[in-house]
Amino acid sequence: MTPADAYAELARRAKEAQTLSSAASVLSWDQETYMPEAGAELRGEQLALLAGLVHQRRTDAKIGELLTLVESSSAAADPRAAADVREWRRLYDRAVKLPQRLVEELARVTSLAQVEWADARRESDWKRFAPWLEKIVALKKEEAQAIGGDGPAYDALLDEFEPGATSAALAPMFADLRAKLVPFLHRLLTAPRRPDPTILRRRYDVETQRHFARHAAEEIGFDFTRGRIDETTHPFCTGFSPNDVRLTTRYSPEFFNDGFFSVMHEAGHGLYEQGLDASRFGKPTGEAVSLGIHETQSRLWENLVGRSAAFWRRWFPRAQEAFPRTLSEVNADDFHFAINAVAPSFIRVDADEVTYNLHVMLRFEMEQALIGGDLKPAEVPGAWNVKMREYLQIAPPDDRRGCLQDVHWSAGLIGYFPTYTLGNLGAAQLFAAARSALGDLDGAFSAGEYRPLLEWLREQVHQHGMRYKPAELIHNATGRPLNADAFMASLESKFAPLYGL
Amino acid sequence: MTPADAYAELARRAKEAQTLSSAASVLSWDQETYMPEAGAELRGEQLALLAGLVHQRRTDAKIGELLTLVESSSAAADPRAAADVREWRRLYDRAVKLPQRLVEELARVTSLAQVEWADARRESDWKRFAPWLEKIVALKKEEAQAIGGDGPAYDALLDEFEPGATSAALAPMFADLRAKLVPFLHRLLTAPRRPDPTILRRRYDVETQRHFARHAAEEIGFDFTRGRIDETTHPFCTGFSPNDVRLTTRYSPEFFNDGFFSVMHEAGHGLYEQGLDASRFGKPTGEAVSLGIHETQSRLWENLVGRSAAFWRRWFPRAQEAFPRTLSEVNADDFHFAINAVAPSFIRVDADEVTYNLHVMLRFEMEQALIGGDLKPAEVPGAWNVKMREYLQIAPPDDRRGCLQDVHWSAGLIGYFPTYTLGNLGAAQLFAAARSALGDLDGAFSAGEYRPLLEWLREQVHQHGMRYKPAELIHNATGRPLNADAFMASLESKFAPLYGL
Repeated sequence: MTPADAYAELARRAKEAQTLSSAASVLSWDQETYMPEAGAELRGEQLALLAGLVHQRRTDAKIGELLTLVESSSAAADPRAAADVREWRRLYDRAVKLPQRLVEELARVTSLAQVEWADARRESDWKRFAPWLEKIVALKKEEAQAIGGDGPAYDALLDEFEPGATSAALAPMFADLRAKLVPFLHRLLTAPRRPDPTILRRRYDVETQRHFARHAAEEIGFDFTRGRIDETTHPFCTGFSPNDVRLTTRYSPEFFNDGFFSVMHEAGHGLYEQGLDASRFGKPTGEAVSLGIHETQSRLWENLVGRSAAFWRRWFPRAQEAFPRTLSEVNADDFHFAINAVAPSFIRVDADEVTYNLHVMLRFEMEQALIGGDLKPAEVPGAWNVKMREYLQIAPPDDRRGCLQDVHWSAGLIGYFPTYTLGNLGAAQLFAAARSALGDLDGAFSAGEYRPLLEWLREQVHQHGMRYKPAELIHNATGRPLNADAFMASLESKFAPLYGL
Repeated sequence: MTPADAYAELARRAKEAQTLSSAASVLSWDQETYMPEAGAELRGEQLALLAGLVHQRRTDAKIGELLTLVESSSAAADPRAAADVREWRRLYDRAVKLPQRLVEELARVTSLAQVEWADARRESDWKRFAPWLEKIVALKKEEAQAIGGDGPAYDALLDEFEPGATSAALAPMFADLRAKLVPFLHRLLTAPRRPDPTILRRRYDVETQRHFARHAAEEIGFDFTRGRIDETTHPFCTGFSPNDVRLTTRYSPEFFNDGFFSVMHEAGHGLYEQGLDASRFGKPTGEAVSLGIHETQSRLWENLVGRSAAFWRRWFPRAQEAFPRTLSEVNADDFHFAINAVAPSFIRVDADEVTYNLHVMLRFEMEQALIGGDLKPAEVPGAWNVKMREYLQIAPPDDRRGCLQDVHWSAGLIGYFPTYTLGNLGAAQLFAAARSALGDLDGAFSAGEYRPLLEWLREQVHQHGMRYKPAELIHNATGRPLNADAFMASLESKFAPLYGL
């Protein structure tokens, strides 16, 4: 077998594993969107079985042999093929460390736990969820131990979502950010001008919101012949392939932001998924590179486009037309200020651009403590509320608005939260680079032209898949390593004028 | 290994295969309900892969060994376990005859063909669909040949849907029925009284229809904590397990029957699925016994309950309340007569109880000719229209309302149609037996009490799964072999007074 044959065989196998894995994603999507509750037990079995089959395929010893064969060739291959091989190696080495039983057990437990979490959240009943988190933390510790590595157990989990990231590297970056954010937040909270966020908490007809948000997603480039929007407790985006990308959101009849900005956010993820190279399905260069990079795309479209003054020059008159009774007396500047209101709040996904990262830091620290064994699941509500006071000077009145708000832990996604902050920083840095490259984006947005920006992102980010490591991708696209400068500059330039600083 | 161990191992393997197969059913359901069109290609790959994995599991030589082991034991097992073994043997012997490649190819081709069919139907473009039918007929012939048997190739396909049925046995039964139906239809069409079906072709608000039909499905006993209703081009019911049963329907804003009676029909299927023994998931005694028996349940609830005068004594006032402008001037008797109007029509699923079986016979004969090689896919539209004139004295103005109306062929379901007529006859026979056993059902229906009937069906039909062969099940429940007598008697007793005969 030649190295080229071995590469082709690896690609065939990877495609098969990805086909199965994407089938499991359809089942997970259905579980969140439409499955009746009584279906949960079988769904858990189905997902466990599929996870096991995928894992079998990804850990087949034959893959190790094929990789060795391809790696032995010094022929300078196509750089994308070389990146495929590099990533297949990394994934294989990671996957073979995980016992099949653990993989299946995690799929089964998290499938059931998500249903329990949804009920617990509705009833604000942490005790109901705690035993599930107990199980999940135990399984994730087992996973971390199986994977090993030099750093703390937590890093083994983090690495799954953000290859190359470590808690040792994140901690100072987050500390630096916090040191800048806290005084910035203080300046805003004591500023001379104040927004009127009650504008957004009036009656917004849900059916009209659906059309309005869909229209916006369509205009920024989300292709509905290759995707759709449904409604779930917790918004998410899942791409089965670039040709079938599912967004979800939730609409509140009395809060505009909930639905609209969830759609903009998830559509940002969806644009990335739709921009991947469909012809490379199953190959790493056809897959999203990391969650942090994924989040650069969602936050860029949600905040840097969707909360910009330029965007609303076009969309505010449309909003007034869609919600005439609600918005006829409101002026565009007040609306724009309201959607950019900064205030400590309970719910991460509704948090403003300034406080959002403080929510993330809280979770990052709590997860490290859970995995490190310093915090027990039963102690989470207390610890949560203490940290909320420390970072945001408020504590939630119940666990529904506190430690039960996020789906992640019930889904086994421990080590995922820090990628949100990486995404926020990366989004600002990419957006600044796009502005340098493309010139006047404000004018384009006001005219409904989002295509130049989308094409720049396709070119710089989407089309590459995993060709470059996340840090390298950001460096290539922006000319600098990832840091908080562009993010802080972006906050300054938006919020200083709004708040009259 | 003891025979008991072998049985347990067979059950474990069957459960795994069924878990995978039910995962594929979720994907098929999504394909029909929510999948964006561009997702079709990957969906075909996913379904082909899963079909292959299921087939591998069902044809594993180890199953043959385990079956031989269990069969060697003369110990009088639990009769349900004995039935499981009998059916596993039948399914295994059938499955091992089908090459893996053929199974995967059928899954792939039919997944794509269903999307093509939906487009072809919309555009009434038979030429677009014909090449797909060509492929499917070739694959189904190959399947029939692989399975073999003494009868014509068609019987090998029929047997998959209705174990034990043969075209030689069905043909005279159908001929007898046709000999009775045609004069009966003539009597109605020349009767002194005539219904006013335009009552049903007024404006019926779709959102109100949704609530109305859902309420009816709920009241007859469909459990929405274990199921749901969505909307598709072609209504269907699919049960992933008794705890997750999905119905679909379609609503027409200007035709009441389309939505309402599709829901009653599919809910009948759904009640059967929900009534299977969930603790026997994967075992034949936990699965529906045949499509003919499945159809007895759907037709019973749709026609014998849902089109009865007693049902509408309760539901017509509700209909007037739901659609006040449409129905305020209509009286209950006229409405009941209208929903039972008999007239030759183009669309099978909208056909009345009298003409419905003529639609089935046409398809039955056409399928035999396609598989027998006497009819080419390109010739279907012509042959269809000729037969429509012969049986129903009308011919459709386009193929959308003719040979493109049904999803079955695009899904590879050749040999399926005759089970509809078996279902119609069986429904009437079961319903007559239920009336004998339970006494006054009309009084119960008028009072909204459907539980006694449902419980009788649970007892006589649902709980058994495949414990008895279809013919035996009907005989046990009704005291007689299946025949057309109860069906004709039911038509006579409903339609003679309505039509003033």
